[in-house]
Amino acid sequence: MTNVLSFHRQHCIKPDGRSLWLYGRQAVALHGPVPSPSPDPVHATPQLRWHPLRREWVIYAAHRQNRTFLPPDGHNPLAPSVDPEHPTELPQGEYDVAVFQNRFPSLSLSAPGPAPLPGANPSAGTGACEVVVFTQDPTLSLHGLPAEHVKLLIDVWADRTSELGAQDRIQYVLPFENRGVEVGVTLHHPHGQIYAYDHVPPLQARTLEAAHEHLSTHGEPWATTFLREELESGLRVVSQNGGAVAVVPPFARYTYETWLLPKRSAARLSDLDDDERLHLAALLKETLARMDALFGVRMPYLMTVHQAPTDGLPHGEWPLHIELYPALRAPGKLKYLAGTELGAGVFANDALPEIKAQELRGVTL
Amino acid sequence: MTNVLSFHRQHCIKPDGRSLWLYGRQAVALHGPVPSPSPDPVHATPQLRWHPLRREWVIYAAHRQNRTFLPPDGHNPLAPSVDPEHPTELPQGEYDVAVFQNRFPSLSLSAPGPAPLPGANPSAGTGACEVVVFTQDPTLSLHGLPAEHVKLLIDVWADRTSELGAQDRIQYVLPFENRGVEVGVTLHHPHGQIYAYDHVPPLQARTLEAAHEHLSTHGEPWATTFLREELESGLRVVSQNGGAVAVVPPFARYTYETWLLPKRSAARLSDLDDDERLHLAALLKETLARMDALFGVRMPYLMTVHQAPTDGLPHGEWPLHIELYPALRAPGKLKYLAGTELGAGVFANDALPEIKAQELRGVTL
Repeated sequence: MTNVLSFHRQHCIKPDGRSLWLYGRQAVALHGPVPSPSPDPVHATPQLRWHPLRREWVIYAAHRQNRTFLPPDGHNPLAPSVDPEHPTELPQGEYDVAVFQNRFPSLSLSAPGPAPLPGANPSAGTGACEVVVFTQDPTLSLHGLPAEHVKLLIDVWADRTSELGAQDRIQYVLPFENRGVEVGVTLHHPHGQIYAYDHVPPLQARTLEAAHEHLSTHGEPWATTFLREELESGLRVVSQNGGAVAVVPPFARYTYETWLLPKRSAARLSDLDDDERLHLAALLKETLARMDALFGVRMPYLMTVHQAPTDGLPHGEWPLHIELYPALRAPGKLKYLAGTELGAGVFANDALPEIKAQELRGVTL
Repeated sequence: MTNVLSFHRQHCIKPDGRSLWLYGRQAVALHGPVPSPSPDPVHATPQLRWHPLRREWVIYAAHRQNRTFLPPDGHNPLAPSVDPEHPTELPQGEYDVAVFQNRFPSLSLSAPGPAPLPGANPSAGTGACEVVVFTQDPTLSLHGLPAEHVKLLIDVWADRTSELGAQDRIQYVLPFENRGVEVGVTLHHPHGQIYAYDHVPPLQARTLEAAHEHLSTHGEPWATTFLREELESGLRVVSQNGGAVAVVPPFARYTYETWLLPKRSAARLSDLDDDERLHLAALLKETLARMDALFGVRMPYLMTVHQAPTDGLPHGEWPLHIELYPALRAPGKLKYLAGTELGAGVFANDALPEIKAQELRGVTL
């Protein structure tokens, strides 16, 4: 782990008070004012309520109902601002990746404590929601960017996770990308999001428990055991390079579900050195290219980055990895979650991981 | 609880060996042969694999890939069979509701033990998958049926849960309906499904733990406390009758999520007497009608029936209820599950349950 930043960063404040961070592989330079689509300060009043039977928190963000939804042709709020009459979220200038606080956040560090209510016991929706713009070019996909640019995105995720996670009230940081109209994406400019929670979310709490148990029982982190077995059998490995492995896990829930893991077990992206980040970036770029080449269509997907909780502990047991859920199970056929998935939590997958890994390996890039 | 059946039932065997049960409010009569779209015996080889980090089973049903997908106009496999050249799943005759074993089951009581595989430890996909046809009329919706017909459906769910649950290898039975092209439904004839599992699914395991804890702490079942509070405040009650209540729970995850509970706490549908079943049926019919009237469009939804595990214990702590997840959050706007829901297990809801309950109450029926 190094403390020397291999990238450039500039922090700005938008007219409405929100933060904007510009990141560059080269020096960052602004060529115009820092814009915001609206000068009005953000007034977010998210709340959390406890679901007593599922035993998980639910977020209520009633102020989000007016958020941007497929803006008219020609207006792209994630492109650099050109027309002063219709400002976007980003300035003109020299930078590669930008992050800003969401104008319609589901969670906020300044969320007020909600009024008590009979039958509900709401608490403040404490947390943060940020938008990550991957490139200034609205026409590209993540895998169309140079590997060094994708590596910068990993730097950005690591940087934002460290900064958000350093706050006492933030216990978990989740970077993700949701891509494709089929999975509800309203803006087509390549971008992702970051959610920061004031608690360890239920899926991560279960992973933490499982990883802790594995380390106690086997004397090595879960990811070490898992990768050794996968590399030994090779049955489900899609691809690998000097620092990272892409694999359809033997317990995949989605047809073409693919996980990316660094070869050296780590807890967070910030634990990876520059070389490991570049290997992970190159493999992510390649894997996403495989997904688009698979059926010759732009694959809709959800990508989530699974790091350890930001509770100040090193979490040597945690398996840092990226999960990729492609939404198509065959050409033109979306996977829908139905009764067994949403009503019972039992996923039904129509395909064996060994077969799908073989298909993904066979894709011509 | 009564042992006198208030309905008629006839069990048949299809040419391919699958079971068919015909249910009627009046005597059941067959007016033709019992058909099957194919004479070939079902050869299902589902397997289960353990997801070590989510700590849940995943179903693999690779034999399902050739299943029926939006059949061509004019062929409805759930309508009574007319053309001997193109047999459907159901015979001509006098009956109201039909249940048959799925030709492409995700789980099967005759699933073979899968071969061992490096890195995976698959076990047989033991269980059952049944299709429930709500009516012979392909044009109706569930709420368009008479209340007594919907009550028969509740009888059918109770009957199938008892019969499946009586088998040692079945630990949980989940009836559900998934409706609408928007949520992936491939056949438009009104129908639902039943999944029977050889384990208590993760969501139900958490509910069981929570309900057990509530009973220990409060000395009454969770549903009793919940309904008293909801009826007292009235803030989220959509509707009620002599035996059942429809409420948007204070912890709703979907915008118009609505739960139906019998007024007397029960563990399973089979615990309800005829009168209670009729009240629940009437309220279900009314609630589904509200959903369609809300925006004046056919609301896509998932409905799941939450009964206690079928492990032979009475489970007085369990809150029998029906959960209804309407898929639209506004006219023309679907709720998509994205990063926070699928990547963390934290639902984000853009609306407060109190407001949405008010809207649903105000619907003109």
